[in-house]
Amino acid sequence: MRILITGAAGMIGRKLTARLMADGKLNGRKISQLDLQDIVPPPATVIPAQAGTQLAINSLRDKKLDPRLRGDDEGGDGDNGFKITTHVGDLAAAGTAAGLVHHKPDVIFHLAGVVSGEAEANFELGYRVNLDGTRALFEAIRAAQISPRLVFTSSIAVFGAPFPVVIPDDFHLTPMTSYGTQKMMSEALLADYARRGILDGIGIRLPTICVRPGKPNKAASGFFSSIIREPLVGLPAILPVPRDVVHHFTSPRTAVNFLIHAAGLDGNAVGPRRNLTMPGVGVSVQEQIDALGRVAGPQAVALIEERPDEAIWSIVKNWPTRFAATRALALGFEAEKTFDEIILRHIEDELK
Amino acid sequence: MRILITGAAGMIGRKLTARLMADGKLNGRKISQLDLQDIVPPPATVIPAQAGTQLAINSLRDKKLDPRLRGDDEGGDGDNGFKITTHVGDLAAAGTAAGLVHHKPDVIFHLAGVVSGEAEANFELGYRVNLDGTRALFEAIRAAQISPRLVFTSSIAVFGAPFPVVIPDDFHLTPMTSYGTQKMMSEALLADYARRGILDGIGIRLPTICVRPGKPNKAASGFFSSIIREPLVGLPAILPVPRDVVHHFTSPRTAVNFLIHAAGLDGNAVGPRRNLTMPGVGVSVQEQIDALGRVAGPQAVALIEERPDEAIWSIVKNWPTRFAATRALALGFEAEKTFDEIILRHIEDELK
Repeated sequence: MRILITGAAGMIGRKLTARLMADGKLNGRKISQLDLQDIVPPPATVIPAQAGTQLAINSLRDKKLDPRLRGDDEGGDGDNGFKITTHVGDLAAAGTAAGLVHHKPDVIFHLAGVVSGEAEANFELGYRVNLDGTRALFEAIRAAQISPRLVFTSSIAVFGAPFPVVIPDDFHLTPMTSYGTQKMMSEALLADYARRGILDGIGIRLPTICVRPGKPNKAASGFFSSIIREPLVGLPAILPVPRDVVHHFTSPRTAVNFLIHAAGLDGNAVGPRRNLTMPGVGVSVQEQIDALGRVAGPQAVALIEERPDEAIWSIVKNWPTRFAATRALALGFEAEKTFDEIILRHIEDELK
Repeated sequence: MRILITGAAGMIGRKLTARLMADGKLNGRKISQLDLQDIVPPPATVIPAQAGTQLAINSLRDKKLDPRLRGDDEGGDGDNGFKITTHVGDLAAAGTAAGLVHHKPDVIFHLAGVVSGEAEANFELGYRVNLDGTRALFEAIRAAQISPRLVFTSSIAVFGAPFPVVIPDDFHLTPMTSYGTQKMMSEALLADYARRGILDGIGIRLPTICVRPGKPNKAASGFFSSIIREPLVGLPAILPVPRDVVHHFTSPRTAVNFLIHAAGLDGNAVGPRRNLTMPGVGVSVQEQIDALGRVAGPQAVALIEERPDEAIWSIVKNWPTRFAATRALALGFEAEKTFDEIILRHIEDELK
């Protein structure tokens, strides 16, 4: 089983890499090779993997890189016996994608992308990375004639306001950001390439990941994590939107579970509609804060300061709320049931 | 008022050109310049326009081209006093689109594209023309900072089976052809570019055009016209699909009316959902044939031969049936009410 991960240096990419290194297998088959691509060097490769052991994810961050790994490098065998290769480069640049599929991966996790805030601020970068990068990868797969299972991380940003209270699977796609537009276009490509048998694609529309570990990134959704993550370690946090904003969340651990589950799905059971909205926990900001209070007490809640931000609000107000995710649930995707559970997973995975 | 038409040599492009040359104005403003682009020379420019006179459309076909018009050429003033320039070139090629928007058109009709059957048969050509060509045009507009009204001809092929009996405006987009995928992706671009103010776009999802004049093209939908057009002039026609297939039609004249109406719409009244499903006549093949019998008698109907074609059926069976087109009707788009009317318009416009 050969696996390629694009965007492997990102938060989900690092957690997925750690999970695969720990498991040593995917879809019941032993992993023989793991290719990690990102525009910056993926740090995970320097972590020795113990087969069957869950790695502490925090240890993957800010780890000093082995100088041999700066640039494309044939890494040695992992401790669990598979080869890890890192690839540093722009997926949209000529030749990059062809180099990545050269080893004929059986499964590709296509995670590479710039986040919503950045795609909105930088029009050209967003289209280049989120659309051209995806298309370049798909085209390289077509040229290589390998038809791998390809799991693509799309986003609930493909949907646009106004929304019903609970959004059904067949809600129309009217994104209201460039990021959502790029994800929608990539989903359309994935479905067409899958229909033609060029690749065996599954698009998963991830809920907003919460609690996102580490430092804030440029995602407009960053505050949803900050108001939990910072108070849990005694730091202040800013809430830039009204407390009645409802949004749809999943933990990083569950997001990785979604990816692993998608890799093993029977494509025939999925059918021609290859893009699936993932289940999650739909709660208001107030309900998030109430859960924080239950888990960490009123002193944590007191660290949240309301400071309205028009730029963030203008994006977030058009975001979806709760999803039915009927198809994904029927296909066996499992999410948290409460926001308390999401906070507890963060504490287990990041703060122990 | 400066106008650019891409795909001006196509059937709709020629009819739109003739209409604009006859009207001499658009949105109540006098036309000062008309730029006609296609990958083949647009023949319409050789027709002397009489302001206020409806040109006979048939005369635009197979007209021998003035040799000066083979290639980019500054045409002289039309008889009604506006300048017509033809541009022959591939919209997706570097520099073509920039050259087209050089004159800062106020209104652009973006019609260029390859049809469904061709996009399905030739994967690379379809993406190049239908997606890359559109994006190149939009990017040239962004670079020129002109924000024109841009009317884009999308298609009901953005929708995919299974369908409800009447398809609502907010039905989800799950195309089942590469053509539909390319139109869906172009719609997404149009909405995002419009949201950012780069262009003032309106996408109109045209029903299948019927009766399409002239010779059959590579569209999988060709037989819908053939079974009417050929018998009306005493020729045999082939029906490759079952008679209970229901589909959504509009005449060429009405399609041109849609384009003209879209050019004058108030963008604020349209709102952020810039892609509109057009109204049309939803009938079964049997109802088409019944209308032909009413208009032209049983001897015309007898010229239709049923000869099932699996390749055509595999595409057509996933096509939509009837549309509500609620938003378009509210915005003043008007269609035929019966298929008899569609046949009579064909006779008026093409056979007199």
